[in-house]
Amino acid sequence: MGKTLAEKILSEKSGKDVVPGDLVTVPVDFVFGQDGTFPLAIQQMEKDLGTRKVFDPKKVAAVCDHASPSPSEQVSNVHIFMRKFARENGIHFFENGDGICHQIVAEKFAAPGKIVIGADSHTCTHGALTAFATGMGSTDVGAIMAYGTTWLRVPESFKFNIEGDLPKYVTSKDVFLHIVKEITADGATYMSMEYRGSTVDKMSVESRLVLSNMAVEAGGKVGLCPADAKVKAYLKAHGRENEYRKIAADKDAVYSDELEVDAAKLEPYIAVPHRVDNVKPVSEVAGMHLDSVCIGSCTNGRIEDIAVAARILKGKKAHKDTRLVVYPASREVLAQAIKLGYIETLVEAGAAVGAPGCGFCIGRTVALGDGEKVLSTQNRNFKGRMGNNKSEIYLSNVPVAAVSAIYGKITDPREVL
Amino acid sequence: MGKTLAEKILSEKSGKDVVPGDLVTVPVDFVFGQDGTFPLAIQQMEKDLGTRKVFDPKKVAAVCDHASPSPSEQVSNVHIFMRKFARENGIHFFENGDGICHQIVAEKFAAPGKIVIGADSHTCTHGALTAFATGMGSTDVGAIMAYGTTWLRVPESFKFNIEGDLPKYVTSKDVFLHIVKEITADGATYMSMEYRGSTVDKMSVESRLVLSNMAVEAGGKVGLCPADAKVKAYLKAHGRENEYRKIAADKDAVYSDELEVDAAKLEPYIAVPHRVDNVKPVSEVAGMHLDSVCIGSCTNGRIEDIAVAARILKGKKAHKDTRLVVYPASREVLAQAIKLGYIETLVEAGAAVGAPGCGFCIGRTVALGDGEKVLSTQNRNFKGRMGNNKSEIYLSNVPVAAVSAIYGKITDPREVL
Repeated sequence: MGKTLAEKILSEKSGKDVVPGDLVTVPVDFVFGQDGTFPLAIQQMEKDLGTRKVFDPKKVAAVCDHASPSPSEQVSNVHIFMRKFARENGIHFFENGDGICHQIVAEKFAAPGKIVIGADSHTCTHGALTAFATGMGSTDVGAIMAYGTTWLRVPESFKFNIEGDLPKYVTSKDVFLHIVKEITADGATYMSMEYRGSTVDKMSVESRLVLSNMAVEAGGKVGLCPADAKVKAYLKAHGRENEYRKIAADKDAVYSDELEVDAAKLEPYIAVPHRVDNVKPVSEVAGMHLDSVCIGSCTNGRIEDIAVAARILKGKKAHKDTRLVVYPASREVLAQAIKLGYIETLVEAGAAVGAPGCGFCIGRTVALGDGEKVLSTQNRNFKGRMGNNKSEIYLSNVPVAAVSAIYGKITDPREVL
Repeated sequence: MGKTLAEKILSEKSGKDVVPGDLVTVPVDFVFGQDGTFPLAIQQMEKDLGTRKVFDPKKVAAVCDHASPSPSEQVSNVHIFMRKFARENGIHFFENGDGICHQIVAEKFAAPGKIVIGADSHTCTHGALTAFATGMGSTDVGAIMAYGTTWLRVPESFKFNIEGDLPKYVTSKDVFLHIVKEITADGATYMSMEYRGSTVDKMSVESRLVLSNMAVEAGGKVGLCPADAKVKAYLKAHGRENEYRKIAADKDAVYSDELEVDAAKLEPYIAVPHRVDNVKPVSEVAGMHLDSVCIGSCTNGRIEDIAVAARILKGKKAHKDTRLVVYPASREVLAQAIKLGYIETLVEAGAAVGAPGCGFCIGRTVALGDGEKVLSTQNRNFKGRMGNNKSEIYLSNVPVAAVSAIYGKITDPREVL
């Protein structure tokens, strides 16, 4: 029987001819955690497994990104705890300001066919590089750090066939918002969401990372994109061309479900409070005042995102009543954005550009006030996520966010650019 | 009888021929507060004076800098409270990421002969532009915001005659640390510290701002530098040449105290925990491990500081065990530093470069962990100032901080550069 991408990878890794529902044990190629979860994984190793030694230091990373730079002595002490463990074991360690774990793992570690496990729900991001990548709790991650293996139930697969050209100012973020609106936030629970079709083929790896990153917002276990020339070029650009492998779903693969998406019919969408699948066309919420616009996160903080924001904001100013906050996703992204003049443009437009990290998305380094409304390019708009239960979070693509910052209200770029 | 700079300005402003000890009422040319103090000043106006209307909106500014970007909903609500008042009154308002109040006031508002009052102890900074500038509590500032006047006791004056050339890697920061070591932290209590001599004449306004900024660390009411061609050029560079006026102390001015400083004999100094006047030559503490190095603050976050740091860190990396944090003092400084390539250099050297603000200096946006040692270019090393009572803060100039970041320990630039 033909296999989906997920089944292909798990068959190879488990050495068995798997079908959905099988339980398999697989070696883990890369495991990581962030400052909210990694300390718990260390404790799991110490208390329940009686060890502080990782199975292979080259395959483990700890990243300070969720509260970075650390805004409190408590967090600073957590970082000290992580650093001590990292030094002891010689694992990869990423400091305050190095960037978001998912971006760093995409740049440096993920590759086709690998099993990547992270102690963070958005680990599915790395499916864009055709890795079987998924988030687990700190307890599981602690065990993986010690033993280098994990068990998985082979997921059913959901095929998303996306065809055609995306209209101007419509991005992969809108493709996903359309999908989650169609299938709802639990529409792909524990499934392998496999994105394919001419639209995906034409997308940059950066754009695909958005599709994979948000898979978990529909309940997906993984969100896989094809391993193709674009993935090869991405790896080459990061000095890892040798990690490229062609992996493809079989033509006769069996999917539990399928959705056809006509890219040409999509528009810019907004996920309105307080659910990611509460999706409306931008025209339905245009005009709503915004207290803040945030550009960044593991969803949309990459160089192509910063480039789009800079192009739209060039020579313009953010509205005086709307705080514009930009957090590039990694040190590499920031350095490139500086070289290309984007950061200069954004600073001149009035943005507060922070050190790479994702604290704003969870209200740890940037928080909202009572009654404030924010438009963010991140992946979640749950009540209180950005540090205040009485605030409202709206999600959009980068062009909508950038143009809305100029007008101080939700704005459809197709109307004004 | 001849007059000191302070007496000159207060005589003119009060319309009386003042001597030290006189109580005078003077009009205030500029008044401002930050997010820690401005809200209390508003409350003072409302509750005790029964008004929310400022005397002259062009002469009042509110700055979000002490916890910026806001790291909590509480602070975000304080910012909302400030914004509302600012909009109502049409005063100058500076957002999260615009920079530190003292840097903004230096760039946009302070000038020779002006009375500048800020609800922040380091308002004395503006003495470098020959303004009679001093910090007051929120209660006094609230009254000034309402009425536009204040009373002052005319201070005694303390003359610091600084002559000669500063050795390489010795800066105005070291001049002040030498002074405060000599006279101690209450050696100039309520006095006008008047800096003069060939060393001061040769200093940039940026360097003089350090001398004036730290005056309060010796108890000074103000810290005045001469109004000369350099001040004129600084104002011109900020589009305010018309605000320049020549003001000089009389030759026969009477000083209560005098200190001669031989610039050529100075070295780079370190203020060790937990007092600013606990000053040692760098050689005495060189070699001590540093967990973090912070470059920025209202003391040393200006373009010449960022330039020096970038020059030293060019092509180098911060030590892997030492977090390097850089906060430019204002949006103007950051924009200029980007244009000149300094931020690119610092990011490539491993720095976490934050949005302009001063939260790190008081542990609001960046905090230390237990037992950590930090070398910072800021002005205070009091116990717990950087967010942790169990940490140790060392103060230095920028060259020492930058080179120490590379070596991961307190390092004398004269030994290694």
